[in-house]
Amino acid sequence: VSNFIITLTTDFGISSPYVAQMKGVILGCNPAATIVDVTHAIPPQNITAGAIALREVAMHFPPRSIHIAVVDPGVGSARQIIYVEAGAQRFVGPDNGLFSLVTREHPAQRMVAVTNRAFWQSDVSSTFHGRDIIAPVAARLSRGLDPVELGPALERMVELPWPIPNIADGRVTGEVTHIDAFGNAISNLRQADVARLAAPRTQLRVDVRGRPLRIHATYSQASAGDAIALFGSGGYLEIAMVNGSAANALGLTPGDAIDVSVS
Amino acid sequence: VSNFIITLTTDFGISSPYVAQMKGVILGCNPAATIVDVTHAIPPQNITAGAIALREVAMHFPPRSIHIAVVDPGVGSARQIIYVEAGAQRFVGPDNGLFSLVTREHPAQRMVAVTNRAFWQSDVSSTFHGRDIIAPVAARLSRGLDPVELGPALERMVELPWPIPNIADGRVTGEVTHIDAFGNAISNLRQADVARLAAPRTQLRVDVRGRPLRIHATYSQASAGDAIALFGSGGYLEIAMVNGSAANALGLTPGDAIDVSVS
Amino acid sequence: VSNFIITLTTDFGISSPYVAQMKGVILGCNPAATIVDVTHAIPPQNITAGAIALREVAMHFPPRSIHIAVVDPGVGSARQIIYVEAGAQRFVGPDNGLFSLVTREHPAQRMVAVTNRAFWQSDVSSTFHGRDIIAPVAARLSRGLDPVELGPALERMVELPWPIPNIADGRVTGEVTHIDAFGNAISNLRQADVARLAAPRTQLRVDVRGRPLRIHATYSQASAGDAIALFGSGGYLEIAMVNGSAANALGLTPGDAIDVSVS
Repeated sequence: VSNFIITLTTDFGISSPYVAQMKGVILGCNPAATIVDVTHAIPPQNITAGAIALREVAMHFPPRSIHIAVVDPGVGSARQIIYVEAGAQRFVGPDNGLFSLVTREHPAQRMVAVTNRAFWQSDVSSTFHGRDIIAPVAARLSRGLDPVELGPALERMVELPWPIPNIADGRVTGEVTHIDAFGNAISNLRQADVARLAAPRTQLRVDVRGRPLRIHATYSQASAGDAIALFGSGGYLEIAMVNGSAANALGLTPGDAIDVSVS
Repeated sequence: VSNFIITLTTDFGISSPYVAQMKGVILGCNPAATIVDVTHAIPPQNITAGAIALREVAMHFPPRSIHIAVVDPGVGSARQIIYVEAGAQRFVGPDNGLFSLVTREHPAQRMVAVTNRAFWQSDVSSTFHGRDIIAPVAARLSRGLDPVELGPALERMVELPWPIPNIADGRVTGEVTHIDAFGNAISNLRQADVARLAAPRTQLRVDVRGRPLRIHATYSQASAGDAIALFGSGGYLEIAMVNGSAANALGLTPGDAIDVSVS
Repeated sequence: VSNFIITLTTDFGISSPYVAQMKGVILGCNPAATIVDVTHAIPPQNITAGAIALREVAMHFPPRSIHIAVVDPGVGSARQIIYVEAGAQRFVGPDNGLFSLVTREHPAQRMVAVTNRAFWQSDVSSTFHGRDIIAPVAARLSRGLDPVELGPALERMVELPWPIPNIADGRVTGEVTHIDAFGNAISNLRQADVARLAAPRTQLRVDVRGRPLRIHATYSQASAGDAIALFGSGGYLEIAMVNGSAANALGLTPGDAIDVSVS
């Protein structure tokens, strides 16, 4: 079954001509492709930010959608282009860890090194593999190309370092992994991690930078200016401020410890 | 007849992952949907700005297009999700006034409370009804779902307060409702309001912040730096400056009075 | 053969309602159109920037794609709307030079004055020909309308002034034409210009603002903070800085001379 959806996640910046070039190449290979921009505002060369965007978005797409990611500081070096299947979604991009936060949640079912030049543009630049390799490969996959044609199977891909929650003594300790556009501080703690404390949510206490917070179910349970903890729509515990920026108000940055304990 | 066009107007910010999540859900329900971004740069929680964007854009789409709007400070509270038909266009979003500037111009032909969970995502978050209710409902409507299935008919919806032009003594008085991205100050005065003065346009005088202006037919009739009045492409009288920002140059803000009289 | 791809290049700004209005009109004329945003971030009324964007992007699209450009300071004046064919691509927009950098590389094969009102919106505003003329004409072309129907053939169109490289005495002299979003300074020198020096790339020296640089094949050949020259993915010699802005670091602006000579 073909799925003509191809998403794009890059650090090219809003309105970059490079984005339109990639779309032109995709439509040249599959005029019926449905192209969806995830974001082009990943901070330049910030692979972790790209990986987080993919983790937040990919699983909301129908099965077999193809997700292109181009945050590629190593373009022109020996790093490979890879194809990955995980969680019924498909990914194409450089092998630099971009897909490794998705695969932490949904283990890779297949990894392929994209080496067969038959499916690339005939003229590959040394500076823009997104356009010359990744776009045409994704477009051909969307039309039904068997990934086995792309190149040899891979045993492993590059993985980003990622903090593992620590569970001990009735306390779960994670950390802030990133700040989103609203100033919410997102952690690496999931519902399942906190559930090990075996207490109802209302009895849990969250400590961040010396400040105790309660876990709320929704924003509407708190008042404007209140700092709260809640599980965001991506499933991770986050520190938020109603109608404000928790990161600014509490001075939160990635790496800050977040403790959850029974109060 | 189905119409696969679905537009999106939100305050999520450019390149938010939440926009892509909604698109993924829409395409999961209707892989043939044609999704058009109206804007994601509505100032956070500014319902009026969202309502103005819908008013400016919706009627340019083909009949039966579906317009999603998510500017939703009340998510998680008792506010309802509604479906509205007006001017041959269709709208889905929170019942907070977002559609009430459209319906001032094109009275609502049908209003429905979206309560039937059969057409929602199976797992509805408390923080993101745009993705979990509005997106799947819109996608199913685009495939031909009868709106009667969505829930009970509504008698009334929430309406934004809106200034009514005052007509008296050969003078029409309106006010600035918003400043657009070019610094033009848009008013609540339409051609029909001004026509009641029963004088040709060339004899009309516009007074704003103590400054008399002429109504021009086009920008090209004035010189760079000239402040002018003209009926913009949306049909409302606006104060503009050729190659400049009228709002900055004249110090205009929403609420400023605009008088039109025969000179 | 029809090609339903229509691209948009404008100076309307990100998230302008005018962009969505144009898309609504296009989809009203051709519901199956595939609309691609090239950019809406052209600096206001900067025709040269619009022309550069089209030059960088258009040829990456499949043959017979239609490229709409609306950077139109002369709207409402006597300037015409034109249709142009060049390099198997098709263009519609104001006759103000927007297409003249494309046609420097790919000579125009056909030019038509768009004068037949039968294919325009029935009600044409004086301020927004992009929506009322260009969008419906492009949509009808995408469905197969013969361009001969649009109006009379044109002999010439407006051309932007453009610097011609100077070749003399074993030296090729060009200039910086623009700075891109990454701070790279792009020149008017192509590989073919530099090839006239008849020396291998490794023996060439680039001088810009008193600074000698080497021509590299890829960014990965240099270190962070190094200023280098290379032929960018658009085919023009550019001055770049690895992980930085060459324009800022070297103080480069459009018009700066760039000399290439044998070292």
